[in-house]
Amino acid sequence: MRGAVIYGPNDVRFEERPDPTIVEPTDAVIRTVAACVCGSDLWRYRGLADVPRPVPIGHEYVGIVEQVGDAVPTVTPGDFVVGGFLHSDNTCPVCRKGMHSACQHGGGFDGCQAELIRIPNADGTLIATPGQPAADLIPSLLALSDVMATGWHAAVSAGVGPSTSVVVIGDGAVGLSGVLAAAQLGATTIIAMSRHADRQAVATEFGATHIVAERGESGLAQVRELTEGIGADAVLECVGTEEARLQAVDLARPGGMIGLVGVPHGDLPTDRLFWSNTGIRGGPAPVRAYLPHLIDLVWTRQIDPGKVFDLTLPLSEVAEAYRAMDERRAIKVLLQP
Amino acid sequence: MRGAVIYGPNDVRFEERPDPTIVEPTDAVIRTVAACVCGSDLWRYRGLADVPRPVPIGHEYVGIVEQVGDAVPTVTPGDFVVGGFLHSDNTCPVCRKGMHSACQHGGGFDGCQAELIRIPNADGTLIATPGQPAADLIPSLLALSDVMATGWHAAVSAGVGPSTSVVVIGDGAVGLSGVLAAAQLGATTIIAMSRHADRQAVATEFGATHIVAERGESGLAQVRELTEGIGADAVLECVGTEEARLQAVDLARPGGMIGLVGVPHGDLPTDRLFWSNTGIRGGPAPVRAYLPHLIDLVWTRQIDPGKVFDLTLPLSEVAEAYRAMDERRAIKVLLQP
Repeated sequence: MRGAVIYGPNDVRFEERPDPTIVEPTDAVIRTVAACVCGSDLWRYRGLADVPRPVPIGHEYVGIVEQVGDAVPTVTPGDFVVGGFLHSDNTCPVCRKGMHSACQHGGGFDGCQAELIRIPNADGTLIATPGQPAADLIPSLLALSDVMATGWHAAVSAGVGPSTSVVVIGDGAVGLSGVLAAAQLGATTIIAMSRHADRQAVATEFGATHIVAERGESGLAQVRELTEGIGADAVLECVGTEEARLQAVDLARPGGMIGLVGVPHGDLPTDRLFWSNTGIRGGPAPVRAYLPHLIDLVWTRQIDPGKVFDLTLPLSEVAEAYRAMDERRAIKVLLQP
Repeated sequence: MRGAVIYGPNDVRFEERPDPTIVEPTDAVIRTVAACVCGSDLWRYRGLADVPRPVPIGHEYVGIVEQVGDAVPTVTPGDFVVGGFLHSDNTCPVCRKGMHSACQHGGGFDGCQAELIRIPNADGTLIATPGQPAADLIPSLLALSDVMATGWHAAVSAGVGPSTSVVVIGDGAVGLSGVLAAAQLGATTIIAMSRHADRQAVATEFGATHIVAERGESGLAQVRELTEGIGADAVLECVGTEEARLQAVDLARPGGMIGLVGVPHGDLPTDRLFWSNTGIRGGPAPVRAYLPHLIDLVWTRQIDPGKVFDLTLPLSEVAEAYRAMDERRAIKVLLQP
């Protein structure tokens, strides 16, 4: 089979790789129906993270089960399945608390931008959809594999609920998904910070009630004006840079919560958080915990998170997908084998 | 009238001071029924915080209203009142969010270890009890002024609810109050970290299900054993030292919450919090937000937070009260004018 391998900065190749097989009885092998490129894949592509040797890449996928090991009772060959970017057993004490991303027997994926994928802990990772999905549902189901679940996690971590005022920092696929999550969870004021017309349009479609294009003091002043002068109840930090994280602290009201899902690059002023009673919570999303609910929302066409995909390419053109994301010509690229 | 004045380290004097008067129409003057010494008062007493010039000291009190300004409709002379350690207007947008400790027109007290106290923002700060309290309720009502409300805030900030597993770091009056709060909020496993038999006894009376006397690795191992090997859902950090804060991070399970009320002395590892999805929240307690519920719990004798007072002295012996707290001869000292 063929799949993407990253060799170094600006060098992703689509090449022949060995077919994955069942190694453990808890494994499944799936045939990829759709995969995509994640913002976090770009770190290595941009040389911001090391690539010591060529490695298969990609961690978002939907597909059809080809084979399962003997210890995989809940999915069977032919099922259309969605899984998260981390695998989990769904039975350890941490999973039972709903924090599958810290599963005691879980771990990460790499190599999902490929025609076939081996899924460890298949029973605790994959969920089969109620049937074969209509073609137009596939992008939305794929989005659940990472970005939509991550945006949802930001909103849940920030305690978003009915009548909450929310600011979303970051207009990438995760930030936009955070807007959609906030709207679903009942937020009434949803402010998307975005400077790009195409992303503003998706944010509005996803439920943003206000767009703030400016950052820094000016952006802060606009958010304050929309939140009784005090800042937002909940801030979803979907970027991770030090600038974005400090902006999140500025934008939260006293006693507010910041949901963190941007991979952290920079510290947070914990003393300042204390004196303003601002909370922080978040990290890698426990996708598996959210999947049943999110699949139901997609399946019943209540949400359409697949709108974050604004470019579709054949999997064989994965190198072009990386270029398009790197050059910000696309919010997020869907890949079809 | 007479009251306590701190002159410098180890030097608190009981002396003649001017009678407080109504300065603003929103003021009240109350005659103190009971006051007490706070752990945070000891910073100056111990020379850990500066005393540039002699100042009246104390911020916890219950009393009877003597006089009110023209803009104080809800309490009247003769009322027995409880108020928090910060005053608040209870009407600004921040107060309406329940975060009275960051009231836009609020501030701090000092000088409450005195026979008479001026209360700014009386209407938004004081709450009158349903009638004159029985004498044995007074310590518990006094505890609501700071320590009990602060312990409650730790538990609320950490999201304690039915079936939560909780660890409380700190066996001072605030930590013990945190145990009581966790029990009231429905926690089922409540682990008090305490090395002192007298404090362990109060913790148990307040609802601790387990006592862990050791700290560091050994304490961590014991907490893990009581929490399915993963750490507690909620950790109440009621000390504030760097050691205690780092211990809180160790003791929380992945996805757990740390409620912070110990005044921070040391940073927190925010990257580590992110990767384990551990949240932090807390700060100065919005006492006014909790007072109606807590007064009701005390009035109906459902809780007895006054048990943290293990020494009662005449107000005139305030210097001895500081010594007893400083030397850890008392958990908390109640002062009677």
